[in-house]
Amino acid sequence: MIEQNIFLLAPLSGIIGFVFALILIKDVLRKDTGTEKMKEIGDTIFTAAMAYLKRQYKTIAFISLITAILIGIATGYNNLDLGIKTALSFLLGAFCSSVSGFIGMYVSVKSNVRCASAARRSLNEAIKVAIRGGAVSGFLIVSLCILGISGIFIAYNGFSYPKIVPYEIVGFSFGASFVAIFALLGGGIYTKAADMGADLVGKVEKGIPEDDPRNAAVIADLVGDNVGDCAGRGADLFESTAAGIIGTMVLGTIIYATTQNISWIIFSLLIMAVGLLASLIGVLSVRGNETEDPIKSLNRGYLITLILSVIGFYLLSTYILNSLIYFFAGLVGIITNIAFVYITRYYTEGRFRPVKSIAEASKTGAATNILTGISVGFECIFPTVITISSALLISYWLGSLEGNGLYGTAMATMGMLMTCAYILAMDTFGPISDNANGIIEMSGEEDARKRTEGLDAVGNTTKALTKGYAIGSAALSAFILFSSYITKVIELRGSFDGVNILKPEIFVACLFAGSIVFLFSSLGFRAVGKTASKIIEEVRKQFRENPLIMEGKAKPDYAKVVDITTKAGLKEMVAPSLLAVISPIAIGILFKLLGFDAAESVGGFLISGAIIGTLLGTFMNNVGGAWDNAKKYIEAGNLKDGNEIVKKGSPTHAAAVVGDTVGDPFKDTVGPSLNVLMKIISTTTLVLCVLFI
Amino acid sequence: MIEQNIFLLAPLSGIIGFVFALILIKDVLRKDTGTEKMKEIGDTIFTAAMAYLKRQYKTIAFISLITAILIGIATGYNNLDLGIKTALSFLLGAFCSSVSGFIGMYVSVKSNVRCASAARRSLNEAIKVAIRGGAVSGFLIVSLCILGISGIFIAYNGFSYPKIVPYEIVGFSFGASFVAIFALLGGGIYTKAADMGADLVGKVEKGIPEDDPRNAAVIADLVGDNVGDCAGRGADLFESTAAGIIGTMVLGTIIYATTQNISWIIFSLLIMAVGLLASLIGVLSVRGNETEDPIKSLNRGYLITLILSVIGFYLLSTYILNSLIYFFAGLVGIITNIAFVYITRYYTEGRFRPVKSIAEASKTGAATNILTGISVGFECIFPTVITISSALLISYWLGSLEGNGLYGTAMATMGMLMTCAYILAMDTFGPISDNANGIIEMSGEEDARKRTEGLDAVGNTTKALTKGYAIGSAALSAFILFSSYITKVIELRGSFDGVNILKPEIFVACLFAGSIVFLFSSLGFRAVGKTASKIIEEVRKQFRENPLIMEGKAKPDYAKVVDITTKAGLKEMVAPSLLAVISPIAIGILFKLLGFDAAESVGGFLISGAIIGTLLGTFMNNVGGAWDNAKKYIEAGNLKDGNEIVKKGSPTHAAAVVGDTVGDPFKDTVGPSLNVLMKIISTTTLVLCVLFI
Repeated sequence: MIEQNIFLLAPLSGIIGFVFALILIKDVLRKDTGTEKMKEIGDTIFTAAMAYLKRQYKTIAFISLITAILIGIATGYNNLDLGIKTALSFLLGAFCSSVSGFIGMYVSVKSNVRCASAARRSLNEAIKVAIRGGAVSGFLIVSLCILGISGIFIAYNGFSYPKIVPYEIVGFSFGASFVAIFALLGGGIYTKAADMGADLVGKVEKGIPEDDPRNAAVIADLVGDNVGDCAGRGADLFESTAAGIIGTMVLGTIIYATTQNISWIIFSLLIMAVGLLASLIGVLSVRGNETEDPIKSLNRGYLITLILSVIGFYLLSTYILNSLIYFFAGLVGIITNIAFVYITRYYTEGRFRPVKSIAEASKTGAATNILTGISVGFECIFPTVITISSALLISYWLGSLEGNGLYGTAMATMGMLMTCAYILAMDTFGPISDNANGIIEMSGEEDARKRTEGLDAVGNTTKALTKGYAIGSAALSAFILFSSYITKVIELRGSFDGVNILKPEIFVACLFAGSIVFLFSSLGFRAVGKTASKIIEEVRKQFRENPLIMEGKAKPDYAKVVDITTKAGLKEMVAPSLLAVISPIAIGILFKLLGFDAAESVGGFLISGAIIGTLLGTFMNNVGGAWDNAKKYIEAGNLKDGNEIVKKGSPTHAAAVVGDTVGDPFKDTVGPSLNVLMKIISTTTLVLCVLFI
Repeated sequence: MIEQNIFLLAPLSGIIGFVFALILIKDVLRKDTGTEKMKEIGDTIFTAAMAYLKRQYKTIAFISLITAILIGIATGYNNLDLGIKTALSFLLGAFCSSVSGFIGMYVSVKSNVRCASAARRSLNEAIKVAIRGGAVSGFLIVSLCILGISGIFIAYNGFSYPKIVPYEIVGFSFGASFVAIFALLGGGIYTKAADMGADLVGKVEKGIPEDDPRNAAVIADLVGDNVGDCAGRGADLFESTAAGIIGTMVLGTIIYATTQNISWIIFSLLIMAVGLLASLIGVLSVRGNETEDPIKSLNRGYLITLILSVIGFYLLSTYILNSLIYFFAGLVGIITNIAFVYITRYYTEGRFRPVKSIAEASKTGAATNILTGISVGFECIFPTVITISSALLISYWLGSLEGNGLYGTAMATMGMLMTCAYILAMDTFGPISDNANGIIEMSGEEDARKRTEGLDAVGNTTKALTKGYAIGSAALSAFILFSSYITKVIELRGSFDGVNILKPEIFVACLFAGSIVFLFSSLGFRAVGKTASKIIEEVRKQFRENPLIMEGKAKPDYAKVVDITTKAGLKEMVAPSLLAVISPIAIGILFKLLGFDAAESVGGFLISGAIIGTLLGTFMNNVGGAWDNAKKYIEAGNLKDGNEIVKKGSPTHAAAVVGDTVGDPFKDTVGPSLNVLMKIISTTTLVLCVLFI
């Protein structure tokens, strides 16, 4: 069969991506690690990061194993085969996500010091180390995702049972989102608590600069950047990719039922395979030179990836689906992606009105800074919603020209997701360059300082852009996921009339979903606050008990702070994660007991959760970036009061620092976690809806 | 007919309430206005408040007139009679709301100085002045609402055309919400911009106390309290009452169609009539004494109102509807009301964990104060949603036992609304006692100080409680309103299958509604910020240009600040108000042009708007109160750092002041406006849906 041959493109590209990642690892690890002092700092970060990761994944592995057993029982009690297969898919999803996160982090915390060392010689070399070290994460994530899904498809004999196997693979997506919610929350709490702890005692109370080696929280802060941005975002996008691929597979079963053409089921895997190869070429093309802004060379690489992706999508859809229309639907996704980049830029870069207005408002103090920030953050939801809405409606309309609107939206989602590997490479570029800058600062290598500072600034931009990408793809994936849920309900009981929000129980389910999104966020903020206050106490204690630290004559006890952060981060991530997993099932069972149509109510819950998660997530991700850059705008000397330039250390700057600190958990803990929340409520439900249907 | 005789209870109680308000006015105005200095301050506030109100209502009158004409054309182009009647109802609704707001305010700003003067003699007398002055608003609002609606019902010959007239009366509710959105936004912007302006220059920059006569913004601040709490909240609850009564009438037409019993249509009017009389007795029973906490006597009055209301509801439902079940549904509303009081107290009073945690977090600075506040605010959504959900499901279930679930929810709404007059009296108690305290402070009457400070604290509590009440009743009214919308669509085109959120266009409409809620809030925050910065500039300028002001030797130019605030408040209120009115109609027309089922899409828009408005409104109203009271908690000396009490003026206190300032527009501008937003999107649609159906 021709489909079976083409299908091999998926595992093949997965293997190519994986091998490419290994080559990158070898390439990066070969680089030198600089002076003794740099090596020492690099090793400290590495050891602390690995210690955290090992404990995080151990905790996740333990909870996952229990959950897998519960899933096996829940889905297998009247269908043993399904139970075992779903539980195994779940474990494989969790495993692949964890492995890619772990190795990606490993390389990331090995790359930082190498990037720092390279920066002493040339910008081009430093950029290459950072983007290639970052690309390891991106390629591992996408390849393992493709390999895992295509592996299960083959193992469960998908070509013989194409209508059943996609539902069994759903466990993979659940496993991935399960790991993602813990990794994002754990990492997000770690990184922001450490950051706040370091800043509030170091910068605010003691007046020492960022990344100062006298600050006992400085290593925890540097570790946190990796834990949050690399491992966290990686798990998030692993999840979106898995959800996109598998959700599209499930929707494909409907078209398969009438056409008997298996291409509709495997198409999403092929798209990701092509996107992975396109990203590979994109990453290889990145090279900087001393005079050019590094962001330009990153953008050039992205442009190449985009062009190749468009060509790939065109070839695949005309050749395999025999449809030009679905290519256009895919194009909608790619354009959406670009639109998101521009919206994010407008709301988070210092060149435009929003960030300027926040900086301006800092002149009258922290309160007006906060209020203006919230106003800006609320505003940016509007263009974002217009973009998502247009993408959904247009792609649905295109799809319905070919007879299946939902498949059109799935194509848009895949169009957006296919450049994921490149985006992830840019994202992990962030913590590597941030760490490199920190290492240069701590080791006193003044010559390389300017280069790494430039790289760090670029990293902040790419991080903000991937956040926009992450939320956009999460919203689209969530839409695909609950469409799959409906498909599954129809499969299970034959019909589904829709989710009629006029019924009081559906209205209540929607309202309830909203309250869960806010409660989840509340727990996230509280976790950061609690952890940060523990760190603050410890850092203050060290300064108080040993005055030599402040004089720079004694080393603070970094390990103690790392240990406190690790323990607190792991402890605090559990409650909100479980809330996310349990709430949709709980409402399903409760509403069934109350005599309502539980399938419909949970449908309302999922949709409302996705809507409110998208709104709140957009707000949080953007406002955090805007506050951050308003502070940087002032620090760069761009703000004037009358004729005088507002200086660092002035009351205006202090007000902007408050905004930045408030924004930190918005953009790095709660905001990103909301991306996963939207999806995990759907994947949980997809797998466990047998409990209440 | 027996129904016609009973119906007379409504206008009769309206007249009694109105006369009672007139008696109260006479009673309050008879009181003395204290020393010359007090009189002068009182007059200044009075003049400024009236100047603002006149301009506000002139603007509103102008926009209302244009809107009435547009409504007449839109609804009358193929049914002239309907067009004229709807436009007239609209104008009457707008007129009644404005008149009650205007007179209420008039009395409120006459009562403050009388309350201050009475406080020099005894607490009992001061309480009486404040509650009776406040009650004028409450009774005018509820009586004019009842008189207006029952007047139209008679004028349009409701007893002969009971199925048609309720739809014609809907214009009244639209008129009321139209005035409310402007009054709340205008008043809210005025009050908080003045407050922030006064505090940021006075307290923060110059270190002079609150209500210090040297501060040029102090009069604007005192005026603002009346404009916001009295006129604003009054318009909001006028609106909820009208929406509740009329929504229930519309739902009643369905039962009338099968029973031919007109009682179902007029029942809500009768309930409000009984509630008004119960509140009257409640207000008369309030009297304080020197040793008792004033809040106790207010609570006692409320308890009496509640008990009488329950008895009244029981008698009316068993006697007129022949149903004990609907009495229980009403009881659900009354209990919900009480539950809201407790939730609000838990989250906003210093005795409990949430406010304490915010105060505690202030120790590490403004950022942690803000983050903890947001965490608390997000958390309080959960119990609120559980309460609303339980009320809806239980009352719907009760209603369906009698064959009409929606009527059950309407009964719960009426149960909640019936004590409205008393609640409003307590609410307006707030600005009167606040102003009295300000007048005492400015005129240096030290003896009465302790009494008015106590009254002011009580006023803050009652204001917080009425905010919880306002949002709860707004959520329930919004539910009734969109149920009425569906009833109307069925009436217009014969059938309505439901609002199926699975359809992409409905999903998009829901997402869009959410973005409008956030955009509206964004505009509100920005308006406050812009207005406040103009005030800050002016106050700074006055201090700079005339140093004698700071020495207390020259009077600042209060009128200039009042003028700036007035102009800015009026200008800034227009854009968000129009956004609220236009967006549901725009989406209806756009979606019709795109070929979708516009009626269904707009249904999704309304429901999603109500859900997200409730969630966000709950957050904003509570978090503002929590931040406010965290600051007061510290000022009262309740917070300890180690063994030392944290003092006013310490960095910890400064951090709490930032939180309080951020919270101000949350709780007094945007939060309350969201109550009206939820309802106005429905009333607009109810009246204008002919444009897209």
